[in-house]
Amino acid sequence: MKQSLSIVKIGGNILDDPKAKNSFLSQFAAIDGFKLLVHGGGKSATELSKKMQLEVQMVDGRRITDANTLEVITMVYAGKINTSIVAQLQALGCNAIGCSGADANSIQSVKRPVLDVDYGFVGDVQNVNSDYISMLLSAGLTPVFSAITHNKKGQLLNTNADTIAASIAKSLADIFDVTLYYCFEKQGVLKDKNDENSVIKAIDKPIYDELVKSGLVTDGMLPKLQNCFEALQHQVSRVCIGQPSMLSGDSNNYTTLTL
Amino acid sequence: MKQSLSIVKIGGNILDDPKAKNSFLSQFAAIDGFKLLVHGGGKSATELSKKMQLEVQMVDGRRITDANTLEVITMVYAGKINTSIVAQLQALGCNAIGCSGADANSIQSVKRPVLDVDYGFVGDVQNVNSDYISMLLSAGLTPVFSAITHNKKGQLLNTNADTIAASIAKSLADIFDVTLYYCFEKQGVLKDKNDENSVIKAIDKPIYDELVKSGLVTDGMLPKLQNCFEALQHQVSRVCIGQPSMLSGDSNNYTTLTL
Repeated sequence: MKQSLSIVKIGGNILDDPKAKNSFLSQFAAIDGFKLLVHGGGKSATELSKKMQLEVQMVDGRRITDANTLEVITMVYAGKINTSIVAQLQALGCNAIGCSGADANSIQSVKRPVLDVDYGFVGDVQNVNSDYISMLLSAGLTPVFSAITHNKKGQLLNTNADTIAASIAKSLADIFDVTLYYCFEKQGVLKDKNDENSVIKAIDKPIYDELVKSGLVTDGMLPKLQNCFEALQHQVSRVCIGQPSMLSGDSNNYTTLTL
Repeated sequence: MKQSLSIVKIGGNILDDPKAKNSFLSQFAAIDGFKLLVHGGGKSATELSKKMQLEVQMVDGRRITDANTLEVITMVYAGKINTSIVAQLQALGCNAIGCSGADANSIQSVKRPVLDVDYGFVGDVQNVNSDYISMLLSAGLTPVFSAITHNKKGQLLNTNADTIAASIAKSLADIFDVTLYYCFEKQGVLKDKNDENSVIKAIDKPIYDELVKSGLVTDGMLPKLQNCFEALQHQVSRVCIGQPSMLSGDSNNYTTLTL
């Protein structure tokens, strides 16, 4: 029987709030068995860009990453946020190790081709080095990934954290029984985006197809759910979406996705 | 017989010059056998502090590290510099992995006690997790350490890179035949600091004691040499001080220290 592995993606809004961040890290550290964390960046990168008088350009909620912005993102994601999360987890007794995708060539990506929009130094994941990640896990370590990858030619690339979490989950699913958790500030996938109590508890493929058809799944959630079902189609056992309390079983109020 | 391990500390002045940095990394990547890199920060942290309008306070050439300065240092050392070195080494075929001392609890330190000067969030190395570093080396990886450690209580600490290199060297010297290289812009320990051609080729303990007595060793070099002899007294085989060309054997012009 495969051993269980929890892969947790934590959203930027939770990292931006010190109290929510501390509470999340305690819940993460308390997860039994193998675990791995992927984090995004939140507002810190935008704040530092402003302090450095760099223009922040967003297209459809995505950051245009020129060379200066990439430097800021690398400093904030791989420096400030990643290193402080690792130190905090160490204090909580969780033997964390910080990683970017360049470390041990763990996540290789390609620069996104320029079509309608030139996103700049943004990477699309090409390959995950699951041998290396398995080695860390077997050694009792908890990898903490920032959303930075590389192209193996010396170029760092800003990469979507949801996609990194799903890619790692898929790459490890033949070795581990993987549950992929997307933690954010909402209680799950909502039927009515204005009603926090309208959480859909379980979504399988037929329900998902129905939701997409009905137009109930809103723009921001659509790529997330697509990522989830792609992961499930690659042997990931289940995906859970909701607030961090779902990690400790303190809440039944989250969405579980299965095929 | 022990296998050889090269531990290389690279100085900030070389990292500040892109051409010198690229040349150094090529020479480092070409080292045969086990190797490990420790880097300082150079001017980038001071430049970012200025951009963020933080006051840079130095006492005897050492940076006073308040909370804001620590954040800048973490962003620059563990983010910008470390991640880009790792990506560059990966492109050179060297399977590098970036580390701060918080990663896998690899270097634990204590906050420097306040005596005459309050250095702020500065750490003195207390313990190196040699098991973890050996595991990485055995897995074919090349650890790249930034000069950031932690106290295992959640606090990151700015730590002298020379000391980190010496501490790692000492901790691994019972497993490996360790050579410790201090790479900087000068050709070695100079007899006359104004004469680049006055390199002292070999220093042993009696010569060192003589040099100290004579006052020929200048202020900046004194703690470096003290670090070196402490490492030698803890089974490190030899210490070499000079320009990066010494790594590839292209130069005989460097200082070798032995007991």
